[in-house]
Amino acid sequence: MRDVVIIGVGMTPFGRFMDQSPSDLAVVACWNAIKDANVSGKDIQTAWVGNCLAGIVTGQQGIRGQVFLREAGFSELPITNVENACATAGTALRGVWMEIALGLYDVGLALGVEKMYVGDRAKQLKALAGLTPSELRNSGFQFTADLALHLKKYMRKYGATREDFAKVVVKNSYNGSLNPYGQYRKPRTVEEVLSSRMIADPLTLLMCASIGDGAAAAVVCAKEVARKYTDKPLVHIGSVALKSGAVRQPGADEVDDIRRRTAEEAYNRSGIGPEDIDVAELHDAIAPNELRIYEALGFCKEGEGAKMLNEGRTAMTGDIPVNTSGGLIARGHPIGATGLAQVAEIVWQLRGEAGDRQVDSPKVGLCQDAGGWLGEDNAACDIIILKK
Amino acid sequence: MRDVVIIGVGMTPFGRFMDQSPSDLAVVACWNAIKDANVSGKDIQTAWVGNCLAGIVTGQQGIRGQVFLREAGFSELPITNVENACATAGTALRGVWMEIALGLYDVGLALGVEKMYVGDRAKQLKALAGLTPSELRNSGFQFTADLALHLKKYMRKYGATREDFAKVVVKNSYNGSLNPYGQYRKPRTVEEVLSSRMIADPLTLLMCASIGDGAAAAVVCAKEVARKYTDKPLVHIGSVALKSGAVRQPGADEVDDIRRRTAEEAYNRSGIGPEDIDVAELHDAIAPNELRIYEALGFCKEGEGAKMLNEGRTAMTGDIPVNTSGGLIARGHPIGATGLAQVAEIVWQLRGEAGDRQVDSPKVGLCQDAGGWLGEDNAACDIIILKK
Repeated sequence: MRDVVIIGVGMTPFGRFMDQSPSDLAVVACWNAIKDANVSGKDIQTAWVGNCLAGIVTGQQGIRGQVFLREAGFSELPITNVENACATAGTALRGVWMEIALGLYDVGLALGVEKMYVGDRAKQLKALAGLTPSELRNSGFQFTADLALHLKKYMRKYGATREDFAKVVVKNSYNGSLNPYGQYRKPRTVEEVLSSRMIADPLTLLMCASIGDGAAAAVVCAKEVARKYTDKPLVHIGSVALKSGAVRQPGADEVDDIRRRTAEEAYNRSGIGPEDIDVAELHDAIAPNELRIYEALGFCKEGEGAKMLNEGRTAMTGDIPVNTSGGLIARGHPIGATGLAQVAEIVWQLRGEAGDRQVDSPKVGLCQDAGGWLGEDNAACDIIILKK
Repeated sequence: MRDVVIIGVGMTPFGRFMDQSPSDLAVVACWNAIKDANVSGKDIQTAWVGNCLAGIVTGQQGIRGQVFLREAGFSELPITNVENACATAGTALRGVWMEIALGLYDVGLALGVEKMYVGDRAKQLKALAGLTPSELRNSGFQFTADLALHLKKYMRKYGATREDFAKVVVKNSYNGSLNPYGQYRKPRTVEEVLSSRMIADPLTLLMCASIGDGAAAAVVCAKEVARKYTDKPLVHIGSVALKSGAVRQPGADEVDDIRRRTAEEAYNRSGIGPEDIDVAELHDAIAPNELRIYEALGFCKEGEGAKMLNEGRTAMTGDIPVNTSGGLIARGHPIGATGLAQVAEIVWQLRGEAGDRQVDSPKVGLCQDAGGWLGEDNAACDIIILKK
């Protein structure tokens, strides 16, 4: 297996862009990544394109990546179109990583694109509903409600409070206020978060990521040729782990958390453990879940997520800063683009290019996404480990 | 790169199955392939799932493979959902092949599923229209008409006739009449084909593949462990090449055929040339195109496709039998499943298990699919080379 590095990243701002098509967004993200990598368009030999909702939202399916990339000036490439709920963009990166590790190509592009604001609320909701199996959809199932119940149980079991949950939003919205690509740039207070509209107790509106439009991309390269293109620090792909849920161990009460299982694989394959992680982007689509992800990933012990947050360990000044980008809560969550926006943030952090959000000399970073809903657990989870 | 082999294949019959969901179809194809491979469900470590139209047809997107495979009893696996127009199933096989070649896993599943008959003609047409960019769709563009114009040009240039085109259907419908999985089992005559309804001159109804429901799957394995599971002949994956269109060379009149470019890569990577191919499954969705594919793949010279057919070289008794399964015209074309049905046919042929359709001791086989439409060329093409 060849060593594979990321030599360029790029994204669009995330937000509500009614005058921009998915292709418009893709063009900007691709070319930002390509310029950052100092490669030319002709150097790109392969592309993997992640998009989750275009089939329902725009009627374009089957050849989404070909359509997006044609606008960006690419033809002839092998293009693989992938979707995997919130793990979509991570899945695209995983594909390019494999092709280059295998020696099929030297330089490739991973692109994630999502257009969610389409001026048609019914269509937006229909597209999101596509991320649960039809039998759940048809019985009125709503994954936010299920998560809320799980969080109630978590509060009872470990003593976590509503304030703890709100503080995740306080941290991430502050970080996001420093991110020029962010969808929401306003720092929030605990009071604001708790007094925003109740969605499903204990979840309030400001604890839930919004929909968004945006694209993000990475140029991936065989390490052995990377110095032909760039003088910047090379960011190695340690591993990209992918899992689906739900698994119930014999006799167990609850399903075995997909995030724990995916982390196990990511750590095993990379030889990197949770104690080595210097900075992380985690899937805070439902902000309180960030605390449970600290635990699932081994950043702290089971039940100690809130303690970790309250000690400031995951703040920008902590020992494992989490969601310096603002996370899904503040930077935004155009589903198929999110994973590569996380990768962009970690690459900037590892290279020391994160500006006002820069943390102290990180060497190893981690990105995690999980989404889609099978009734008991997320449908897909990916974890990417990156190191300088 | 590790040697990778196919140790099991399976499919559903192709046809119109109003009482079966995509998951129902998936379960049958998966377990037929798993039984054929003599592995257990627990041996499957990864899965790639191809589906093209479910987003629009069933409202399920983002986690299609997780939903299909849950019904088949699989959770925990890494599941990658891919789509690539008519190259969808080939793209799924390519993914598993890479993972195993890379050493990430030893045994994996490639699955292609499509449900096209949904009792709602408008929805069916909308789903198919998703395979062209929206600006072409919105201007009334119809890819069949464009292909018809290209075929007229081909007739003028090389003297091919309507009868030649009809004879492709005669050959493939005869082959399909011997295939128990086939959607259309009736052998057709030249007269029947030419007198069927005109779609776009020179294309008549019987020259165009129908829509269909179906699923097909393959169990893929690292060669070094394959003998733990099966005593059957191992079928090696020589290469899986993938390209997108359209490319116009400087000063050229026409775009550079995606099928020719993909074949070039498949031959280069496998060290196998057109002269080595003993049996092939080619994309005859528009039957006359089969003749042009002989040429693009180097089975004969440019312009000599009809001659090759008329000499019987691609008949079941010829030197390169093509579409022994009946092809898309007779076996059927549930888009996301087609490529793996081709793989199943070639595996059966190489193992000597093709029954009434068995050709004489083939050692090397080829599968080719191309589809989606960018206005000038197909959006995606894959070519798979398999050898005993």
